[in-house]
Amino acid sequence: MIETTFFTSVQDRVLLVEEKIRSKADGHNPTLAAALNHLLCSGGKRIRVVVTLLAGKMIKADPDRLITLAAAIEALHTATLVHDDLIDGALIRRGIPTLNAQWSPAATVLTGDFIFAQAAKLAAETESIEVMRLFSETLATIVNGEITQLFSSKWTANRENYYRRIYAKTASLFETAAAATGLLTSASADYYELLRHYGYEIGMAFQMVDDILDFTGEQATMGKPVASDLRQGLITLPAIYYLESNPKEHYLQEMLESNFTDEERIGKLLASIRSSGAIQKSLDEANQAIGRGLQALNKLPETPERHSLEDLAHYIVEREI
Amino acid sequence: MIETTFFTSVQDRVLLVEEKIRSKADGHNPTLAAALNHLLCSGGKRIRVVVTLLAGKMIKADPDRLITLAAAIEALHTATLVHDDLIDGALIRRGIPTLNAQWSPAATVLTGDFIFAQAAKLAAETESIEVMRLFSETLATIVNGEITQLFSSKWTANRENYYRRIYAKTASLFETAAAATGLLTSASADYYELLRHYGYEIGMAFQMVDDILDFTGEQATMGKPVASDLRQGLITLPAIYYLESNPKEHYLQEMLESNFTDEERIGKLLASIRSSGAIQKSLDEANQAIGRGLQALNKLPETPERHSLEDLAHYIVEREI
Repeated sequence: MIETTFFTSVQDRVLLVEEKIRSKADGHNPTLAAALNHLLCSGGKRIRVVVTLLAGKMIKADPDRLITLAAAIEALHTATLVHDDLIDGALIRRGIPTLNAQWSPAATVLTGDFIFAQAAKLAAETESIEVMRLFSETLATIVNGEITQLFSSKWTANRENYYRRIYAKTASLFETAAAATGLLTSASADYYELLRHYGYEIGMAFQMVDDILDFTGEQATMGKPVASDLRQGLITLPAIYYLESNPKEHYLQEMLESNFTDEERIGKLLASIRSSGAIQKSLDEANQAIGRGLQALNKLPETPERHSLEDLAHYIVEREI
Repeated sequence: MIETTFFTSVQDRVLLVEEKIRSKADGHNPTLAAALNHLLCSGGKRIRVVVTLLAGKMIKADPDRLITLAAAIEALHTATLVHDDLIDGALIRRGIPTLNAQWSPAATVLTGDFIFAQAAKLAAETESIEVMRLFSETLATIVNGEITQLFSSKWTANRENYYRRIYAKTASLFETAAAATGLLTSASADYYELLRHYGYEIGMAFQMVDDILDFTGEQATMGKPVASDLRQGLITLPAIYYLESNPKEHYLQEMLESNFTDEERIGKLLASIRSSGAIQKSLDEANQAIGRGLQALNKLPETPERHSLEDLAHYIVEREI
């Protein structure tokens, strides 16, 4: 049984964060309010927001600035998703239509830009230059990761590249969500570094687990097709481990060459990976990351929020597997 | 004869600004350095950079922070152009190929995002929260203007909408280029307001003149087809004045209905507008804006830079007409 009271304990403040993001469309074109509303209703768990709220409360950051910071984090995340879905041509996210499924590419690009602008404005409203700097660096890291992936003619299936990619894609923002709270208080540099480390490790684990779920999940629960990564030619951790143990596996090799369009091969490969030890190996690795994150966390002051952040870390590897 | 020594007087610092922007690709994917290089070589006059450098020197802002601020302004401008050209499907800007003419939409969206991130980072490096706030507001204004244009089923040909649109598109960034320098010094609130007013008026005039040149210019000088606005269904100031004086003009009305695809009608309409008083009326209005901008400017301390900013204002209405 996974302990998820950490979600309910901050639910009121999560609503304030959503309200703050929604209010950023005031005075602008009504289609922007509609877009923000659609995006915020898409039923995400706001896990990054929860990390920020808990970490900030743990180290006694000012509550108002913390709400603003969490809103900035979620806005940045949302803006990158809007452009990502457009680029990937994704029509569904978390079971509901993406913005680009309903709007023109032009409107989608601009809506993403508008949300970037609001993320920057929210970051400025934290009144911390360091938060601003960290924000813009995180955005650069995320985008640079996507561009690198785009210009890699074929994503080479090795772990080093994988870690680099999931850091850019996911862990960098978890890192910022946790560490930026340390910039709101006169917390020592040690606090900042411990929070950063916790955010980094749970972010890496989060993406590894997402990638595992893409193999083990069911379409109904996931809100997207199973093995959607493979279908896009994206070799993630379970496939990398599988390939390491089966270097002569011909399905994957053939798929790499055939651009992943053969449904029968995808089905066979999916079954092989599912029944191999690669899933467990990947899960072990995610658990190790969580272990390192908890080690960093446990050096921080013991408060109810620290315990919630522990629960959150466990939740990340235990959800739906 | 237009006095343009104001360009040469800041040439060294303009190069430092470009260098600063280029350096932002360091440590990232090499395609980003290539893209930034291509964009910075596109031969723009960097007029916003020149406004910032001159205004900042006039009020004795710190030179290093001023270079950083000017780089942030130009990066923001460049990022919006990258997404604009993609959205408009423009293949040529200032006579050279746009990024989207050579790259996929995905790469173009991401490169624009990367430059937004660097603009935000440069703004943070000015160490002024107020600069950050102004920056994010300006980006929101620009994008909101584009979205409004996109969702207006037909751009209604009246001056009020036109002013609102060109403020969002152009004057807002000129305003920020001038006013933000006032945030780098302990300049009084009056300085800030006067700089803002100067920037606003020359920005409005700049776009009016651009819109006039679209009617009066030659393709070779402009680096884009004549009457390109009309061809896109965009009714700018000369066409608005023409329509006001010729409310029963049937070519324009028919074009509004036929979605501007008829080359013969465009040719006839272009000739009619060119030979009407609408061009002169538009030019008079741009000159009036410049007059108001100079009035604000002349309340600022008299320095060589103030005279350069006067020359720059005159240049804006006199270039190539």
